[in-house]
Amino acid sequence: MENQELIQFGLLVKKRRLEQNLSQEQLALSCDLDRTYISSIERGKRNVGLLNIIKIAKALNVEPSQLLTFDGYLNG
Amino acid sequence: MENQELIQFGLLVKKRRLEQNLSQEQLALSCDLDRTYISSIERGKRNVGLLNIIKIAKALNVEPSQLLTFDGYLNG
Repeated sequence: MENQELIQFGLLVKKRRLEQNLSQEQLALSCDLDRTYISSIERGKRNVGLLNIIKIAKALNVEPSQLLTFDGYLNG
Repeated sequence: MENQELIQFGLLVKKRRLEQNLSQEQLALSCDLDRTYISSIERGKRNVGLLNIIKIAKALNVEPSQLLTFDGYLNG
């Protein structure tokens, strides 16, 4: 599944994770998700559910909305 | 599935829909989803996937992030 929005979401998660100096493993542990799931999210392969978006946002100390700020979104 | 975050998301979708004077049917049609699905989202019964969050946001002329602005979120 190649989808621009999923890819952008994945890049945002990765960016926030690196800003927090967290490995995928550390992020996965702190939000009780599997590392391979975090990896597939960051590669834009997952249509993540709202509850997991919120879990990941909490683990990254950001608001869920901050993981959905896609640039040039509405005219995409 | 009773979950505060899903309930808040549902209330935000409903609020935005009413602001746009759309019925559930009209919203459902414009984002190619089923009316009963929209209804269950608004009642906080659905762990909505990212792609549907984006579809609904586009149909409501808001950014996806605006559907995830939960109040008092991080200290919840």
